[in-house]
Amino acid sequence: MQGELHEECGVFGVYHLPGAANLTYLGLHALQHRGQESAGIAVSDGDSIRCRKGHGLVTEALSSQKLAELRGENAVGHVRYSTAGGGEWENIQPLLVRAKMGSLAAVHNGQIANARELREELEEQGSIFSSSSDSEILLHLIQRGRGSLLEKLQDACRRLEGAFAFLVLTEQSLYAIRDCNGLRPLSVARRGQGYCVSSESCAFHLIEAEEVRELEPGEILKFTAGGMESHRYTADTRHRLCAMEYVYFARPDSDIEGRNVHSLRRRTGRLLARRDKDLKADMVVGVPDSSLSAAMGYSEESGLPFEMGLIKNRYVGRTFIQPTQELRDSGVKMKLAANRSVVEGKRLVLLDDSIVRGTTSRRIVRLLKEAGAREVHLRIASPPLRYPCFYGVDISTQEELISARLSVPELCRFVGADSLRFLTEQEMQEAYGGEDFCFACFDGRYVTRV
Amino acid sequence: MQGELHEECGVFGVYHLPGAANLTYLGLHALQHRGQESAGIAVSDGDSIRCRKGHGLVTEALSSQKLAELRGENAVGHVRYSTAGGGEWENIQPLLVRAKMGSLAAVHNGQIANARELREELEEQGSIFSSSSDSEILLHLIQRGRGSLLEKLQDACRRLEGAFAFLVLTEQSLYAIRDCNGLRPLSVARRGQGYCVSSESCAFHLIEAEEVRELEPGEILKFTAGGMESHRYTADTRHRLCAMEYVYFARPDSDIEGRNVHSLRRRTGRLLARRDKDLKADMVVGVPDSSLSAAMGYSEESGLPFEMGLIKNRYVGRTFIQPTQELRDSGVKMKLAANRSVVEGKRLVLLDDSIVRGTTSRRIVRLLKEAGAREVHLRIASPPLRYPCFYGVDISTQEELISARLSVPELCRFVGADSLRFLTEQEMQEAYGGEDFCFACFDGRYVTRV
Amino acid sequence: MQGELHEECGVFGVYHLPGAANLTYLGLHALQHRGQESAGIAVSDGDSIRCRKGHGLVTEALSSQKLAELRGENAVGHVRYSTAGGGEWENIQPLLVRAKMGSLAAVHNGQIANARELREELEEQGSIFSSSSDSEILLHLIQRGRGSLLEKLQDACRRLEGAFAFLVLTEQSLYAIRDCNGLRPLSVARRGQGYCVSSESCAFHLIEAEEVRELEPGEILKFTAGGMESHRYTADTRHRLCAMEYVYFARPDSDIEGRNVHSLRRRTGRLLARRDKDLKADMVVGVPDSSLSAAMGYSEESGLPFEMGLIKNRYVGRTFIQPTQELRDSGVKMKLAANRSVVEGKRLVLLDDSIVRGTTSRRIVRLLKEAGAREVHLRIASPPLRYPCFYGVDISTQEELISARLSVPELCRFVGADSLRFLTEQEMQEAYGGEDFCFACFDGRYVTRV
Amino acid sequence: MQGELHEECGVFGVYHLPGAANLTYLGLHALQHRGQESAGIAVSDGDSIRCRKGHGLVTEALSSQKLAELRGENAVGHVRYSTAGGGEWENIQPLLVRAKMGSLAAVHNGQIANARELREELEEQGSIFSSSSDSEILLHLIQRGRGSLLEKLQDACRRLEGAFAFLVLTEQSLYAIRDCNGLRPLSVARRGQGYCVSSESCAFHLIEAEEVRELEPGEILKFTAGGMESHRYTADTRHRLCAMEYVYFARPDSDIEGRNVHSLRRRTGRLLARRDKDLKADMVVGVPDSSLSAAMGYSEESGLPFEMGLIKNRYVGRTFIQPTQELRDSGVKMKLAANRSVVEGKRLVLLDDSIVRGTTSRRIVRLLKEAGAREVHLRIASPPLRYPCFYGVDISTQEELISARLSVPELCRFVGADSLRFLTEQEMQEAYGGEDFCFACFDGRYVTRV
Repeated sequence: MQGELHEECGVFGVYHLPGAANLTYLGLHALQHRGQESAGIAVSDGDSIRCRKGHGLVTEALSSQKLAELRGENAVGHVRYSTAGGGEWENIQPLLVRAKMGSLAAVHNGQIANARELREELEEQGSIFSSSSDSEILLHLIQRGRGSLLEKLQDACRRLEGAFAFLVLTEQSLYAIRDCNGLRPLSVARRGQGYCVSSESCAFHLIEAEEVRELEPGEILKFTAGGMESHRYTADTRHRLCAMEYVYFARPDSDIEGRNVHSLRRRTGRLLARRDKDLKADMVVGVPDSSLSAAMGYSEESGLPFEMGLIKNRYVGRTFIQPTQELRDSGVKMKLAANRSVVEGKRLVLLDDSIVRGTTSRRIVRLLKEAGAREVHLRIASPPLRYPCFYGVDISTQEELISARLSVPELCRFVGADSLRFLTEQEMQEAYGGEDFCFACFDGRYVTRV
Repeated sequence: MQGELHEECGVFGVYHLPGAANLTYLGLHALQHRGQESAGIAVSDGDSIRCRKGHGLVTEALSSQKLAELRGENAVGHVRYSTAGGGEWENIQPLLVRAKMGSLAAVHNGQIANARELREELEEQGSIFSSSSDSEILLHLIQRGRGSLLEKLQDACRRLEGAFAFLVLTEQSLYAIRDCNGLRPLSVARRGQGYCVSSESCAFHLIEAEEVRELEPGEILKFTAGGMESHRYTADTRHRLCAMEYVYFARPDSDIEGRNVHSLRRRTGRLLARRDKDLKADMVVGVPDSSLSAAMGYSEESGLPFEMGLIKNRYVGRTFIQPTQELRDSGVKMKLAANRSVVEGKRLVLLDDSIVRGTTSRRIVRLLKEAGAREVHLRIASPPLRYPCFYGVDISTQEELISARLSVPELCRFVGADSLRFLTEQEMQEAYGGEDFCFACFDGRYVTRV
Repeated sequence: MQGELHEECGVFGVYHLPGAANLTYLGLHALQHRGQESAGIAVSDGDSIRCRKGHGLVTEALSSQKLAELRGENAVGHVRYSTAGGGEWENIQPLLVRAKMGSLAAVHNGQIANARELREELEEQGSIFSSSSDSEILLHLIQRGRGSLLEKLQDACRRLEGAFAFLVLTEQSLYAIRDCNGLRPLSVARRGQGYCVSSESCAFHLIEAEEVRELEPGEILKFTAGGMESHRYTADTRHRLCAMEYVYFARPDSDIEGRNVHSLRRRTGRLLARRDKDLKADMVVGVPDSSLSAAMGYSEESGLPFEMGLIKNRYVGRTFIQPTQELRDSGVKMKLAANRSVVEGKRLVLLDDSIVRGTTSRRIVRLLKEAGAREVHLRIASPPLRYPCFYGVDISTQEELISARLSVPELCRFVGADSLRFLTEQEMQEAYGGEDFCFACFDGRYVTRV
Repeated sequence: MQGELHEECGVFGVYHLPGAANLTYLGLHALQHRGQESAGIAVSDGDSIRCRKGHGLVTEALSSQKLAELRGENAVGHVRYSTAGGGEWENIQPLLVRAKMGSLAAVHNGQIANARELREELEEQGSIFSSSSDSEILLHLIQRGRGSLLEKLQDACRRLEGAFAFLVLTEQSLYAIRDCNGLRPLSVARRGQGYCVSSESCAFHLIEAEEVRELEPGEILKFTAGGMESHRYTADTRHRLCAMEYVYFARPDSDIEGRNVHSLRRRTGRLLARRDKDLKADMVVGVPDSSLSAAMGYSEESGLPFEMGLIKNRYVGRTFIQPTQELRDSGVKMKLAANRSVVEGKRLVLLDDSIVRGTTSRRIVRLLKEAGAREVHLRIASPPLRYPCFYGVDISTQEELISARLSVPELCRFVGADSLRFLTEQEMQEAYGGEDFCFACFDGRYVTRV
């Protein structure tokens, strides 16, 4: 199901560490799977903030020359996925503005559900917007607030509905904020005398930082010379982490809310297998990379061998040209190949993480059948996606969700599989070890007003 | 004296013409001498505004792909000189913002003298700034204004002190504004059923537009489907065009306020020659390119032959590497060469347009002497620069103006010339045909509160 | 063990198919794992040959504009790994020369063992070399040969010792050549009215070509309007495919000499497990990507769960900057991360494909131990590498082969593992189903004079 | 007449000077007017030769990183004009080959008239060609020669007919060669303990080298540790410098064969004026840049003022996009603008250096007339071009030479001028001070067999 679902981004911050830009560069590199369209870093040296950014991967957007221009011990960085296209430089984060209280740089992961209302209200009051980023809304709210910067941040956050993990850098300090439902992940770690903040814990390992804990829903962490202070912007909080983080976004070696992503995905595979006692099949195949963990679990539970029936081409860059009309329709072929000798004449259980539009699944099934697979039994490691997301997952309308339109048997015919089964919501909760998640895209029960 | 003095930029606008982006591209190309650091174009198609920009020459900043993305009939464009360095993308114009009344794109030539005050006031009211461009101040003032957009513009302009030529593009219309002292030039032309606006008239020729007239000081031209409407933002106006436009910035084939730039420079050369009746010399040499007109005039008046004693290398790009330490000091050599066989053993009258720091003049004199020139009599086609400019010419402090520190004989020794003479202020007024100019950098009489 | 061993390249050819350049582009994309340093395509339109090439991945080296310039129905292409660095454009293949019989373009996979002798001999006869590519030797030999081009090719090949798969393109025809020991793979496929030739069969699937067969050792295939003619340049042939193709180079979904690469690697894992009956361990971990197949086999045979204990970062490009001194030593961290929660406190069987210098293995073991692994039992899916390769594998000296210097127990201590075992030569032959391979880097029995 | 005529290139060499690559970079920068399509430098450090090259200006083709890779005290460099298009990297000079006697790098200015014959002969003997550069012919001839390298060079040069200035770099020494008719210029200078060689003397000034003398026709200079040795490859020599060097190619501050280029061009202008005693005109205008010297001379002789009636846009780069169909035909407008206020209502004498196809002249005349010029009297500072050049000037066929087809009155009508006069051949010889030139393109008397 790769290539269909995308969260907006990953954020990384550093406080009080020499070479903050370099550490942020590495941290963003570890978060690269969360967004490949643009990257940027802002660094404060105590006096002023400088920002460098660009299109593409971290390694493309930030040259060694740009990095060298970013001196200082405090930093925030961002990697971003965007459908908006190449030209919109203004939307690349961090956003850096000069305001009454000095310079501010902000990065954001998530989506503000009441963004349109807030924008209109701010414009009514005389604000102008130079980007379409939600970060800019936060910065305007801060600027119009009263009291200390912390108080302004608290006031501003109370106005925001939806999903957010913000980092805000000033000349002197760094703030990390997590929304009151905990929809987006955010963790803090220690390294030497300083701190790091990251969307996912996998980034800490790369720079040898020691994870301290995740931010609580509604928490604002303020980093100052004295250390790390915890504040809240509201008492009305709950744990509702986005389930799609586990399903698709996060890296298998990240731990979120105490659960290892790979292990949890593996568990979904086992649960799927448990209901397939009577299925006759020869092997288990996972769609690389996000569905390999579930396939491992299915294999273990079912006793069927786990085989490399699909190969992912690692070298598909952003600039790939699909050169012939006749081959254009099969874009998936550039990225995935069936391992013909392995699947030929065999009955396959094919594990995928989710189905959005259904077209990719259909192509993968066809790929395997054309390579000679006798049967393809598709198993999806999450329930049907039936409701749009307003919290940052790129499923904006119900029309494009095929499970909102087709029943499971209809969908099975559509994708051309010999059988199709989804994880049930009960199994998902069992695998995830609780109900403390946002399952809105599966069950329509949104955690905020939408 | 090339390479020392730089105005901020050139602006170009198009209203109601198919292919507005292409015409603006050509117009900016003709204005390229006004700024080579960055270029950008914003185009409105009636519904929305898109903007593309980049570093370098127009041909580098705007690829054919970027141009193709800019569809519509109304456009504004900008070329810019900046000392700020490569990383500050936010400062490249046009500035495009989304505000209450829709999208606005603005370009600016000049300098707002009370920018700092206005910024602080706006920040106090809750504005945040994402660039250091004066255009953003205008956009904030507009957004906070009342009434129609025209009324907002009028109110905003009344707040601004200093030099400005603004173009403001909305989804539906285009506004061109010139400050009440007329410090920066701005002209309007017709082409087919539409209009063009340009910092200099030389751009009209390239695209075969017919100049209509220059904007009056304090005028706001509003272009709409019905045609061109003239409005004023103040009745308190006067003609005080920046004299440096004639001395250095403008292209010789531009006419500003009814005067051809080349012809006026030529006249300064004649006036200089008229006082040199007793000077024994063999030839006249001009520093290319800006001082060739004055040298032609001096040659004609004096009867001395005009010779190509200095050659300019046309191929010095932005990326030139000065590779050896021993040659680094003579950077001027990369750009200018003495024509040894021509000047050897000769007594030269050397024409230059102005002297800022004195170091370039010193190098040119040394270049000619090392090439064998027997005598070098330096003649400057403008009076000594003694006062900083607050209206967009990049002379920010009195310290760097050598004429503020040294007398003419001292300066003559400093540059190593055999004699040195400047145009007098009286001669300048004679050459320019009036006193209706800003001569503040020569005489310290600023036209606004500073 | 990724990043240590590299073969020279992959070749792909097309005969008598419209859009030959596009098909070659896709074919090279599928062969991208064989070389990422440069890529090139030469196309013949019946009259003349044009060539376009560049540094980097296929998608970087060949822009859509370059592709559009390559019109014609016959083509050869190349992807290349090279340590020679960025500046040596001349060595990027195809090599295109103009000679007596017209233009010739050649691409080459392998290494000519007697290259130095042949070069000296040719230079003695007046040849000059503009590259250091072995392809140029072939082209010189052809040019100096007699008779038809086929006869020249046959004569030339008889002079060559070592490993080679050549494609030679003329204005009218295409030749594919495989050395008499069959050291390098080369296959032919049909597509519509034309043919494709490829180093690996995985490329055929992408463009929907039907594999016909592999070339025989010593065979020269000539493609002409009439079809495909088979010729030999020698009767002295044998099957000695390089075993490292299976161990490391080839893509898991390729079949070479009738064996699927993934399945064969899986078999080596099973054989390793069979000897580990008494090993107490908790899980099997494979080094991604080349050792996952072996890990799957080990897991199946041993009954131990296959776990994702190591994660590969997919986004490490050629331009990655290792920004801090303290982190420089752990370059492997940019590419590989331990899945801490999975391995913590566990006893691991770690599968890798081979050990060259030992330093990468040592880093991976350390990575896992630092992440909390209790024990790491390293299993290598090939025998110890003890002898240099003269046939295209980048192991040029015995000194850099750690197994040539250390015994297995010493090596185990060096890499810091709790136990270490290699596949035996007997097991390898069992897994590979025969002795018809070049095992020279393991046993020193070279198949040619060296 | 700019943009129509182009010689192949400029060459620069350095012997026994630290930082040879840097000096060559500067030298090529001074020769940039001789070719802007590509540039390259090869450097020897005594042991081996490295080469770096690229497309575009010297500053674009050779980054600081590439320069830094070129260590050594001996170097050769090249700038090149080519119609062949962007993709032909192989033709960018220097050409670097490995041959029997070691490595050789060669650069070439000129054209070998019997290149085709020599190529065929060499191919017959087994040579293959990887470029279409004449340098490669020389390198093949050298490689096939006998005796010392000097003897090989002498033998090789005796085989060459046509125009050439070669520099040949070996690991240990540098050779400079000028053809026996002296068709192309080549000079030598001293700098410190070493030497420089250049197509034009203007390059010496930039790097503060002292010109020693020009090479004699038929001379081979060998630079060794002991100094500079002069040799000949033939006794059959004469002075026949290409007259177009003075007319168009060379920089005004270069001296060639003892004549300053600017001064000689000025003289042609004076001679043209002398025959225009009865012409009624208001001003003299030169086509920038190559015709300004002649215009100065005409102005001085006639007493008519020299005016800036045409302005050249300095910023037309290689990537300029001509965006609209309606403007495409007037490409000349991007480069040249009429100074409307200066020429309006005036009678102009317009000086140009030559007429090739006539289309550019026609556009310039039209430009001036559209700007209001009352009369345009075109004066050409060289005789009509009637014969193709086989020595490096890009006039390959008689058909494209309009003076071969039209009489002067017909041509006057074609270009739309009010009168047209060329310099006569007698005047040319008077201005040039002799008959020791190749005037073949004017009079058809070729200096070699063609």
